[in-house]
Amino acid sequence: MSVEIIAVGGYEEVGKNMSAVKVGDDVVIFDMGIHLDRIHIHEDTDIARMHSLDLIERGIIPDDTLMKDVDGKVRAIVFTHGHLDHIGAVAKLAHRYEAPIIATPYTLGLIERTIKGEKKFNVTNPLQVLNAGEKCQISPDITLEFVGTTHSIPHVVTAALHTSEGIIVYANDFKFDNHQTLSPPPNYQRFRELGRKGVLALIVETTNAANYDEVKTHSEKVARILLKDTMEEPLKGNDGMIVTTFSSHIERIQAICDVANQSNRKILLLGRSMERYCSMAEKLGIINLPKTASVYGSPKAVNRALARADEKRSDYVLITTGHQGEPDALLPRIANGKTQFTVKPGDNVVISASVIPNPMNIANRNLMERRLKSCGARIFPNVHVSGHAGREDHRDFIRMLNPENIIPSHGDLQMLSAYTELAEEEGYKLGDNLHILRNGQAQVFNDGSD
Amino acid sequence: MSVEIIAVGGYEEVGKNMSAVKVGDDVVIFDMGIHLDRIHIHEDTDIARMHSLDLIERGIIPDDTLMKDVDGKVRAIVFTHGHLDHIGAVAKLAHRYEAPIIATPYTLGLIERTIKGEKKFNVTNPLQVLNAGEKCQISPDITLEFVGTTHSIPHVVTAALHTSEGIIVYANDFKFDNHQTLSPPPNYQRFRELGRKGVLALIVETTNAANYDEVKTHSEKVARILLKDTMEEPLKGNDGMIVTTFSSHIERIQAICDVANQSNRKILLLGRSMERYCSMAEKLGIINLPKTASVYGSPKAVNRALARADEKRSDYVLITTGHQGEPDALLPRIANGKTQFTVKPGDNVVISASVIPNPMNIANRNLMERRLKSCGARIFPNVHVSGHAGREDHRDFIRMLNPENIIPSHGDLQMLSAYTELAEEEGYKLGDNLHILRNGQAQVFNDGSD
Amino acid sequence: MSVEIIAVGGYEEVGKNMSAVKVGDDVVIFDMGIHLDRIHIHEDTDIARMHSLDLIERGIIPDDTLMKDVDGKVRAIVFTHGHLDHIGAVAKLAHRYEAPIIATPYTLGLIERTIKGEKKFNVTNPLQVLNAGEKCQISPDITLEFVGTTHSIPHVVTAALHTSEGIIVYANDFKFDNHQTLSPPPNYQRFRELGRKGVLALIVETTNAANYDEVKTHSEKVARILLKDTMEEPLKGNDGMIVTTFSSHIERIQAICDVANQSNRKILLLGRSMERYCSMAEKLGIINLPKTASVYGSPKAVNRALARADEKRSDYVLITTGHQGEPDALLPRIANGKTQFTVKPGDNVVISASVIPNPMNIANRNLMERRLKSCGARIFPNVHVSGHAGREDHRDFIRMLNPENIIPSHGDLQMLSAYTELAEEEGYKLGDNLHILRNGQAQVFNDGSD
Amino acid sequence: MSVEIIAVGGYEEVGKNMSAVKVGDDVVIFDMGIHLDRIHIHEDTDIARMHSLDLIERGIIPDDTLMKDVDGKVRAIVFTHGHLDHIGAVAKLAHRYEAPIIATPYTLGLIERTIKGEKKFNVTNPLQVLNAGEKCQISPDITLEFVGTTHSIPHVVTAALHTSEGIIVYANDFKFDNHQTLSPPPNYQRFRELGRKGVLALIVETTNAANYDEVKTHSEKVARILLKDTMEEPLKGNDGMIVTTFSSHIERIQAICDVANQSNRKILLLGRSMERYCSMAEKLGIINLPKTASVYGSPKAVNRALARADEKRSDYVLITTGHQGEPDALLPRIANGKTQFTVKPGDNVVISASVIPNPMNIANRNLMERRLKSCGARIFPNVHVSGHAGREDHRDFIRMLNPENIIPSHGDLQMLSAYTELAEEEGYKLGDNLHILRNGQAQVFNDGSD
Repeated sequence: MSVEIIAVGGYEEVGKNMSAVKVGDDVVIFDMGIHLDRIHIHEDTDIARMHSLDLIERGIIPDDTLMKDVDGKVRAIVFTHGHLDHIGAVAKLAHRYEAPIIATPYTLGLIERTIKGEKKFNVTNPLQVLNAGEKCQISPDITLEFVGTTHSIPHVVTAALHTSEGIIVYANDFKFDNHQTLSPPPNYQRFRELGRKGVLALIVETTNAANYDEVKTHSEKVARILLKDTMEEPLKGNDGMIVTTFSSHIERIQAICDVANQSNRKILLLGRSMERYCSMAEKLGIINLPKTASVYGSPKAVNRALARADEKRSDYVLITTGHQGEPDALLPRIANGKTQFTVKPGDNVVISASVIPNPMNIANRNLMERRLKSCGARIFPNVHVSGHAGREDHRDFIRMLNPENIIPSHGDLQMLSAYTELAEEEGYKLGDNLHILRNGQAQVFNDGSD
Repeated sequence: MSVEIIAVGGYEEVGKNMSAVKVGDDVVIFDMGIHLDRIHIHEDTDIARMHSLDLIERGIIPDDTLMKDVDGKVRAIVFTHGHLDHIGAVAKLAHRYEAPIIATPYTLGLIERTIKGEKKFNVTNPLQVLNAGEKCQISPDITLEFVGTTHSIPHVVTAALHTSEGIIVYANDFKFDNHQTLSPPPNYQRFRELGRKGVLALIVETTNAANYDEVKTHSEKVARILLKDTMEEPLKGNDGMIVTTFSSHIERIQAICDVANQSNRKILLLGRSMERYCSMAEKLGIINLPKTASVYGSPKAVNRALARADEKRSDYVLITTGHQGEPDALLPRIANGKTQFTVKPGDNVVISASVIPNPMNIANRNLMERRLKSCGARIFPNVHVSGHAGREDHRDFIRMLNPENIIPSHGDLQMLSAYTELAEEEGYKLGDNLHILRNGQAQVFNDGSD
Repeated sequence: MSVEIIAVGGYEEVGKNMSAVKVGDDVVIFDMGIHLDRIHIHEDTDIARMHSLDLIERGIIPDDTLMKDVDGKVRAIVFTHGHLDHIGAVAKLAHRYEAPIIATPYTLGLIERTIKGEKKFNVTNPLQVLNAGEKCQISPDITLEFVGTTHSIPHVVTAALHTSEGIIVYANDFKFDNHQTLSPPPNYQRFRELGRKGVLALIVETTNAANYDEVKTHSEKVARILLKDTMEEPLKGNDGMIVTTFSSHIERIQAICDVANQSNRKILLLGRSMERYCSMAEKLGIINLPKTASVYGSPKAVNRALARADEKRSDYVLITTGHQGEPDALLPRIANGKTQFTVKPGDNVVISASVIPNPMNIANRNLMERRLKSCGARIFPNVHVSGHAGREDHRDFIRMLNPENIIPSHGDLQMLSAYTELAEEEGYKLGDNLHILRNGQAQVFNDGSD
Repeated sequence: MSVEIIAVGGYEEVGKNMSAVKVGDDVVIFDMGIHLDRIHIHEDTDIARMHSLDLIERGIIPDDTLMKDVDGKVRAIVFTHGHLDHIGAVAKLAHRYEAPIIATPYTLGLIERTIKGEKKFNVTNPLQVLNAGEKCQISPDITLEFVGTTHSIPHVVTAALHTSEGIIVYANDFKFDNHQTLSPPPNYQRFRELGRKGVLALIVETTNAANYDEVKTHSEKVARILLKDTMEEPLKGNDGMIVTTFSSHIERIQAICDVANQSNRKILLLGRSMERYCSMAEKLGIINLPKTASVYGSPKAVNRALARADEKRSDYVLITTGHQGEPDALLPRIANGKTQFTVKPGDNVVISASVIPNPMNIANRNLMERRLKSCGARIFPNVHVSGHAGREDHRDFIRMLNPENIIPSHGDLQMLSAYTELAEEEGYKLGDNLHILRNGQAQVFNDGSD
């Protein structure tokens, strides 16, 4: 039985991830993400109302039209975590396949929301929960296993497809963090067991593979120390305090709330996506918001909360969206004087995020920071650690899994190449058992009997 | 008689240049520029209609309110070239001083236009031409001399104020280019003569002082070679050809026209500011446009020209504004499909400019280039040489003038510091005869009699 | 009574720190450091045997010859910590002044060693201990106070000179670290008290002032997490483990030992300077070495220890000098096959240091790492946090002390300038109450009575 | 008949180039270069006396041991230019093959010298001249053609192997320069003809493929302008003038001599490799040295010349080796005071080369420049243009040749990847008709008949 790995999207960019694994006649799809970076090219892009083919043409979602030439039956669409570059195209593409959607509860909750918000397509695929540590039979020949790992959103897993030809591991995305408070450490022991059983192929993210400085990604425990050291003193004073971070980074939001909760200030979690991710996390019992915290998502509720905070800023900590300076998000709007909250000299703005390095983000962030500073705010940038594995984490992972083949993914060619050089240090050879695929290409692993 | 140099603007930024030199009771002002980079902070900035004090508060024009405390009479407002960061605030500030405006013809022409376009103030200062190589008496004690130099706009001079205390040289901006076609080389001989007569103080631009790679700025002759090598072959084919550069860079536009004129294509110079600068240069006999060249500035005329070019692109070379990707300029609008000219696969876009390195320009340029490429265009970026003196040019200048004192200007503190280290290598010492001034500060040189 | 601050060295470079404070007729000297970076220029430099004047000419030690023109009596030579760029010239310069040397015990111990190692001069100045939190009378008009702070060596203080004209604070070097295990947090409360009493001038280091990424320097607690996450797993295996860090960074060495001590391996602290700094720290009860740790400094003892380790590498953790790849230090010699310890595939090398960024260090480190890798070693670089205050730490410090005047020091002009921009954000103005001095210059603060 | 391209060396680094092309049973080898960067790893490397296998193990020369498994007969060893990373291993490897060495006269002259200098092996392969524009029959099925191109050494060609399966083009290295004085422009017309005949595969260098700034490499005409603008004024004065550049860059040396010859100074070309390359160029009538020029290679002659120059520096221009600061080359030795020529204040040093960016070069250059400056010299760095094709040159080349397949070479993975992205913009696809090979891998192109 031959195994084929089809690179649908995310092999030429950080975004629009989608891979297919064909085992005999059965196909498993991993991820259906969007590439937000492409949206700016065409000003008239309205994702929710656009057709898949138009979005494909604009490079915003993976080009899955090649799947019609794949001679096999899709048995499952699997999502290993809930970031938009992995699930964002689900409402545009999933209905084309007669197969269940399988994910962890938090991921599945986000997928459900995305499907409900879709205005063009009606997605009716069954939704099936699989938790970390669990397995399910996908077809007579394929068993899917979710192995718990860590990243920057709750309920992240690494997927393992058990087949007669060996195990295929899909690890996209992850970091190795032994000190998160809401997630247990990665299940290293299980990775080693899989390695001993025999991994045929590893499909693996490469986002940080070109970072030669921080070769082991810092733990969230480091972020907690940075947040405490940054926020503790200002919280004692009377100036305003705004913290911004990724809405989906529940571990981080918990850490921010925990520090804020040491003070007497009330916590306001503000912004539509902040509400979406936090309420889902609360519903599933993942986050433990302090009693003094309130979450507001609708513009009206946000405005009212901001007005209250503006009256007595020393009573509040604001946790907002907008860390990249996106013009429509909350913090950039506050900075631009478009809300009821007026930034005043002495106010503190903690940016618990890095700049996602494309020119538009850099420009937006710069403009936001200049506006905040011109109001007199003090800015603490980069109170943050990355959510992606570093080079030495990748090396450890390869040594645990000992895969026969490796396919780097989720990166531009520079990142794939940086990973490739690392894998070559570990004894792999490009073109032999280490494969750089481009979107639309496939890699076949023949069984011995052919 | 004491001499005082007052740093009004441009000593903390690249922009809004303004300096005052007080000799006894007489004051000479140099430059009244704007700082375009500050405009983005406030979205509602409408320069033409705004009051000086509001523009000052927003950091867009120099804060000349300190001039009311200067105990002296302003005798002249001198402009050494016509870039906006040197003349752009003239219509907001000049009327406050009862003094003539003195400049070379091209600079004066641009100033006149600026004054006519002003909607808030009525500027009636007398306009007085002074050519390179000429002198004029400003007051009994002060004679102004214009020494010809080179930069990236026509009719640039370095100013020398002859006083009983010595000569004050204002060199802001310049490059040393021996091979321009529209301007003679800098008058090095006269600089050396001034040096021998005795220069009390040199006020000097520092824009490129932190560039340690290109230590002698390349000549426009290099740009001409690059343009020829880039354009020659594509001009022979049938694909479109768009070239964009600084509208005020008449030397460059001449070079582009000269290369284009070797082909059979007609030349279209397009865009409002392209029209403004080129027609002024034509009127003064500075540029020598080929017969096949036409200049269109009004949106209507530009559109009609673009429609013609779109029909048979192989017949035209388009020379447009928009090299920084500014959303309202012509090339970005072409790239965004907002004009009658459709960019097609194979079209060539030559960017005869560097990115002025602030995050907004970088983002705008990147977006424009991505849009052009997504239409199939081929882009030739950076077909360009700088217009500012390099480190070794500055060293040569110091050795020619041998000034008693140096005041670096037109730069942020990093640039002023880079220049400072250079001057210290030449034997000056910061705080002794080398002075970093901040906007609003003054440096006094006492005469010996005190 | 006038106060004068004289910049002797370290105001144009990171190195050879020396400042003098003159209060009336009394002078206090701070630091006598060396500038190691200058040594490479002349291959024949033999510091221990060379005369001060030669070393001054080569830029290796501060040019204190200007002190003979200072009209006052040196009352004390004060050292606030024991790094070589602060104490390294003591044996070359101190004997010229008839004044006691005052420092904390660890610093004084290191100074004593330096004086003993000197081969040219005989230094007999009295050595006087002053602990953090203590004061001593220097002259009728001057009291010296040591305020405890944190850095990357034990017993670091910020010095405060109490005078009738106000307090002069000398803070060179420091970081704000609330989580060191061997040193208490900085005495913020005392800094605030000094601020309330009235600080006339702050002399402050600027090493990290141009770092806009890490604006609050990470705590050693972060380094402890990184070390644990990096070392823990490899320590369980059978491969070799070498850790290298700054010999004087006792806090870090303690952390490395603590992690190593969780394993069954014995700890070998190796190298001459490792022995020097650790034994001093042990003698003073600062470090708490595990029982399994041994310290070897002499080449013979080091060789014997390495031979033992080479026999059974899984039994040892080696802590060595050589983190910058300096050819004569231990780790580079191991990498180059010049010791009895052969690096083998799988060996782990943890570099608990950053590259001090000059071209020679970068080249040496690169060569060392390539050699280690060509032997099969795995390298974990940059398991490290900085020992210098970040921009926002500096902002906090300014707000605590609220000094009338600031003099940035210990940096090249780019660093001083970066600090200057920060101080200007806090309301200071260069040339008014914020002074950039060059080596050899002085700043005078006159009392009101003149 | 199948065609196979075997990547022997230079596919993972800039250095040790070697490729083999197998057409049916006949094999043609291109290049046998060395990788100088690897020599530093082992201090005891003595290339001239070492055995091939030792040099292979140290990564200094290509590992051609795989050639024994290639089922075919080597018919020719072809060199397309004479740089060491292309010919430097000829004396270590060529004798293993019973085949003639084919190259242009200048290249062949250098090869002959290398063979004569070898102390380990006796190389007796026949040496066969082939000029640009000529062809020769290699085997019944293979004709070799040399097409003239440009680079930074004389007599550079692009090789074309005409076979029944199509043409294989070997273009490693080249730039497109229309304005060299000693070489005609590249034969674009012939490249286009080859394209029309049918190019099966292009093997192409990628050294500058990751340079996104200078997308069309500047012509040597630009270097001539820079040299003139830099040297002209100082040559009129009385200070010393030293110029350093690549010894093999005869075009550049000619340009330097031409500028120097405008003055009254005598020209001294100094250093062993300067003598080697220049005398070869003189013998072949390539360079046209002014009558006032003398070339000295032996240490004794160099010393005598330097002593004369030291006596009256205003009479001489020195053209020396040592642009990378290599400790044993002439200029670094001058800088370090190890010759009879003492650098004095005012002396000018023109570095007509860029730093080849590895840490050791950067450190050596930095040390040399600091030493020169500490003697008072004025340094003009980077008076230089590159010798390698830029991105848009590569695009032009692809469009001229229109090859069926492309194999990027002569670069690390980052460079190969940067080229790959360019080729993909031109419609190629990695893994389909665009192949990244690693050292030791082969790419087979089957004929239709199989």
